[in-house]
Amino acid sequence: MNFSAQSTCLAISGGVGGAKLALGLSHVLEPGQLTVIGNTGDDFTHMGFYISPDLDTVMYTLAEVNNKDLGWGQAGESWNFLEAVKRMGGESWFQLGDRDLGTHVVRTQMLEAGKSLSEVTSHLCQQFGIKHQLVPMTDDPVATIVHTRSGEKLAFQHYFVRDRCMPEVTGFVFNGIDMAKPAPGFLSAMQEPSLAAIVVCPSNPFVSVDPVLKIPGVMEALGSGEAAVIAVSPIVGGQAIKGPAAKMMAELGMPQTALAVAQHYIKQYPGQVQGFVLDEKDRGLADEVEALGLSTIVTNTVMVTLQDRIDLARTVLNFSSEITPR
Amino acid sequence: MNFSAQSTCLAISGGVGGAKLALGLSHVLEPGQLTVIGNTGDDFTHMGFYISPDLDTVMYTLAEVNNKDLGWGQAGESWNFLEAVKRMGGESWFQLGDRDLGTHVVRTQMLEAGKSLSEVTSHLCQQFGIKHQLVPMTDDPVATIVHTRSGEKLAFQHYFVRDRCMPEVTGFVFNGIDMAKPAPGFLSAMQEPSLAAIVVCPSNPFVSVDPVLKIPGVMEALGSGEAAVIAVSPIVGGQAIKGPAAKMMAELGMPQTALAVAQHYIKQYPGQVQGFVLDEKDRGLADEVEALGLSTIVTNTVMVTLQDRIDLARTVLNFSSEITPR
Repeated sequence: MNFSAQSTCLAISGGVGGAKLALGLSHVLEPGQLTVIGNTGDDFTHMGFYISPDLDTVMYTLAEVNNKDLGWGQAGESWNFLEAVKRMGGESWFQLGDRDLGTHVVRTQMLEAGKSLSEVTSHLCQQFGIKHQLVPMTDDPVATIVHTRSGEKLAFQHYFVRDRCMPEVTGFVFNGIDMAKPAPGFLSAMQEPSLAAIVVCPSNPFVSVDPVLKIPGVMEALGSGEAAVIAVSPIVGGQAIKGPAAKMMAELGMPQTALAVAQHYIKQYPGQVQGFVLDEKDRGLADEVEALGLSTIVTNTVMVTLQDRIDLARTVLNFSSEITPR
Repeated sequence: MNFSAQSTCLAISGGVGGAKLALGLSHVLEPGQLTVIGNTGDDFTHMGFYISPDLDTVMYTLAEVNNKDLGWGQAGESWNFLEAVKRMGGESWFQLGDRDLGTHVVRTQMLEAGKSLSEVTSHLCQQFGIKHQLVPMTDDPVATIVHTRSGEKLAFQHYFVRDRCMPEVTGFVFNGIDMAKPAPGFLSAMQEPSLAAIVVCPSNPFVSVDPVLKIPGVMEALGSGEAAVIAVSPIVGGQAIKGPAAKMMAELGMPQTALAVAQHYIKQYPGQVQGFVLDEKDRGLADEVEALGLSTIVTNTVMVTLQDRIDLARTVLNFSSEITPR
């Protein structure tokens, strides 16, 4: 691999898709080389528990205890708590597994005891034996609100889980983001002189990546260093591998293409994204993405096996070292 | 049975032993005839959950979903939540089963939404299909504190579960009891003109029965009616069927006998207990109990089978109608 052993990488991730690439990166990089920033715009309090779906998905994935059948939660999960809650007439729209609940309860207790979300995340990762850094985008409250055609404004999990992404979206607001500061570990990873690659994982651009990049100061800090910002398209062949990204694009009046994802990033963060990774299915779009001013590579981005994750991680890191030679 | 179909019964119960007799009573009496009062001195908040161990044991027992192997919790329980919490380095001394946790979470949510413990208990019982009334002794906070030889004052669950009843006890204090009022359902059951039997179940006299009977006004209300107060000895052949009652008696300098239980009740509630139920193993104590001024019967009080529970319930009710003919 061309990526130097002295270089560090910052990866920005939402849930499942991002976590897959983060896992690949963790297999390729030493613990000190990788910081994964998790979106917390989806976080919410449910039944008194502070739940951080994207951090949990990345954490379970890095610990390799994630539930591969469901795509979320822990492997070997049981559902007796939820069954009991249903029997008691309690809220049951959000699927809380018995093991998963352990995470939420311990996190909630630690937060109530005055720990920051960063400290809690670090503790939980340590308990799971994760050696790379997983850091929330911020320790401050930020809540993604989904604006819908009907005029209703939905808390993200209500849109995503309770309403199964059915409402037609018209836009997104990140409540609290103006007051949010990047988490200390995010800030220090951005300011690290050895930082050589900033990888925007193949996560939902609107509700997973934008909340991270729109925290005041983040794009300025990312853009001010020498490391290239490289985005991996979450849209492949006009479809999202998982989640509502493509559906959202249609509803927002955008073409459901990887090109439109590149255009979104360029429009939102002008001059601050340097590289774009297209799937082989989208080879035909490469010239158009290049024409936007983005260095572009084409590779397999559909990560089915662990080897796929590792291969994509290597490819992305090598790509970064071509754009940013160190 | 001699107990009239128009009469009502109030049963005072702690956990396991009391719940067995409560179940027997529920098989013998119509729903409108039985109110079970549950001790709440053991209640505590753990990991943010309001836990009411005795109410839960009675509720699960009446619903016949209780875990017969463990003697507490629900049948078919799983422990994945607790295992996850342990892995996360969280508190794990209190055994929280996955199903059981559903009860605690729904109860906590309802309490936080402003419902009283009585309302929550009634709701939970309804969801479990329980037709008889289960009522907490009070909706006010009362906390049993165990005073120990070492001078340490332990919250009840710390003594009972965390420290496995190992500390030597010197006495008990019920924090908050002076300000506590009987729960509305307790008060109305006591004032019911048809009340013909007040059964003190074979529960721990010091930490299960005393907190109920020492709520201001309770003994006065019980004593003012025509119904006899009948206590069933939790000590059989010098041993507690379950729990630390006998150990406590030794530490408090009392003989470990059913006679000493009778003496305790007479001393604590002079003139207000009329009947006492001894096990056949303690037939030799009957004359001495009678000599205390208590009507006494001897029967099998060790409830192994459902039929044992039903038989004891019938015997106690018939005994009450001999003492209080209606």
